[in-house]
Amino acid sequence: MKVVPSSSSTLRVRYAETDKMGVVYYANYFVWFEVARADLLRSLGWSYRDMEQDGIILPVIEAHCEYTRPARYDDELEIRTEGRLLSPIRMEFRYQVRLVPDGAAPGQDREAAGADAALAASGRTVHAALDQTGRPCRLPRRIREVFA
Amino acid sequence: MKVVPSSSSTLRVRYAETDKMGVVYYANYFVWFEVARADLLRSLGWSYRDMEQDGIILPVIEAHCEYTRPARYDDELEIRTEGRLLSPIRMEFRYQVRLVPDGAAPGQDREAAGADAALAASGRTVHAALDQTGRPCRLPRRIREVFA
Amino acid sequence: MKVVPSSSSTLRVRYAETDKMGVVYYANYFVWFEVARADLLRSLGWSYRDMEQDGIILPVIEAHCEYTRPARYDDELEIRTEGRLLSPIRMEFRYQVRLVPDGAAPGQDREAAGADAALAASGRTVHAALDQTGRPCRLPRRIREVFA
Amino acid sequence: MKVVPSSSSTLRVRYAETDKMGVVYYANYFVWFEVARADLLRSLGWSYRDMEQDGIILPVIEAHCEYTRPARYDDELEIRTEGRLLSPIRMEFRYQVRLVPDGAAPGQDREAAGADAALAASGRTVHAALDQTGRPCRLPRRIREVFA
Repeated sequence: MKVVPSSSSTLRVRYAETDKMGVVYYANYFVWFEVARADLLRSLGWSYRDMEQDGIILPVIEAHCEYTRPARYDDELEIRTEGRLLSPIRMEFRYQVRLVPDGAAPGQDREAAGADAALAASGRTVHAALDQTGRPCRLPRRIREVFA
Repeated sequence: MKVVPSSSSTLRVRYAETDKMGVVYYANYFVWFEVARADLLRSLGWSYRDMEQDGIILPVIEAHCEYTRPARYDDELEIRTEGRLLSPIRMEFRYQVRLVPDGAAPGQDREAAGADAALAASGRTVHAALDQTGRPCRLPRRIREVFA
Repeated sequence: MKVVPSSSSTLRVRYAETDKMGVVYYANYFVWFEVARADLLRSLGWSYRDMEQDGIILPVIEAHCEYTRPARYDDELEIRTEGRLLSPIRMEFRYQVRLVPDGAAPGQDREAAGADAALAASGRTVHAALDQTGRPCRLPRRIREVFA
Repeated sequence: MKVVPSSSSTLRVRYAETDKMGVVYYANYFVWFEVARADLLRSLGWSYRDMEQDGIILPVIEAHCEYTRPARYDDELEIRTEGRLLSPIRMEFRYQVRLVPDGAAPGQDREAAGADAALAASGRTVHAALDQTGRPCRLPRRIREVFA
């Protein structure tokens, strides 16, 4: 049976991330996605920083987000992230951003009835591996194995 | 014959918008989309600010971007924006971000051979109209007429 | 003896916060300051969000930062924050941002010889209390007592 | 008589730059300062991008801003910028951000009675020249001559 590598990140909404509508500005979810996919790599014993130092970068070639419910200043959020290979040179991450109820520990009761009620947004990003000359290249072997 | 309302915006890449990859950070394209759709409304004699003051907000419920070619610090960009109604309570904007060649006036030679070579990104956002109580409402009549 | 209320916050540098120089863009330190002073208030059983809901806002009227050493992507940072009253209607926060050495627990060995070697930046912000009509007002009693 | 090189930039407040207080988030003024000092260099026939390509970077070592009056979404702003040499390896920029009254052309009536009424913020940044190895170096000759 295949297991899709996944991770959970938590963060708190910054004042800087809100806008005059009183909620989080929509582009900031993509910043959180970046934090979340770095956490997923880190949880697998990898780091995006190391990958770049090894000469491989993973620019985003496609980004998508659907907004379900606004997040507000000081809200605690949990982001569930999954990664999978699209090809030897491309991979995709999927994200679900949930509002953590006040007082609840992140990760607690994820499967409980109220979980979907708290879905703030879901999204995906697609990445292409590039080498130091900027040309498409195979993802690092370890990434290909873990996310195969 | 139906004419799709459209507009053109130009902007210059800020240092703040770049990242350590040396190119524009992907989330910032969504900020530019926001600037571009406000320009489109303004070009039609409307302003997003006025609409909010009239008690109608247009939060993004879906955002998408595909990245074709990196934009860099100090690059001049042109964003072509189109809007259309999806329903009486929803509308969609589509964006194309192009690199303006050094020395060229924006808008010049759009249809020329090199135009697509300069496509940096294209995207879309979907918006739902909400009234002051946060409930879905019809878009302002004028918006519905112009973008019908 | 008077004790100056202080707190410690840790955060990790986001890719979005870097610029093409390969280091953190200078304006982002002010975002971290915002996170840090909210943490200080929270550590005192208060929350900036609650204060705003009570009708008092604390806009920044002065901001200052000195940059000592660049922070980079994925670096872990510790921010030490202190607050004090300047008058019944104004308060000041002071911040020190330090790079946490790889593998070290934040807060560990703060006083050790190497601590200052890791100073990335130090800054201050001054805030004025405003009521719901936008007029200067006294800070909440509790704030005045704690930071007196 | 010595003339201090100066320039004027105009920009419009983006939705992304506001926060839940309904005004511009304080850190964003520093982003505008960056835009403004690049404009000053450009007005002198120079470009910050070129300077970096020549191997000299100008990181900020000190930043300061005082906030007088809030700027809001869609406001048009004018930033007056001056630069001067502090030493052969350091320079300073000073900025004044003013709200442009609706309907007024930027630059118009700057000296008129109402000008100071519209001051939103004033600030300064100090920069150190570094070469490609990250060591302090003399500013480019042309910069030293223009800003002497």
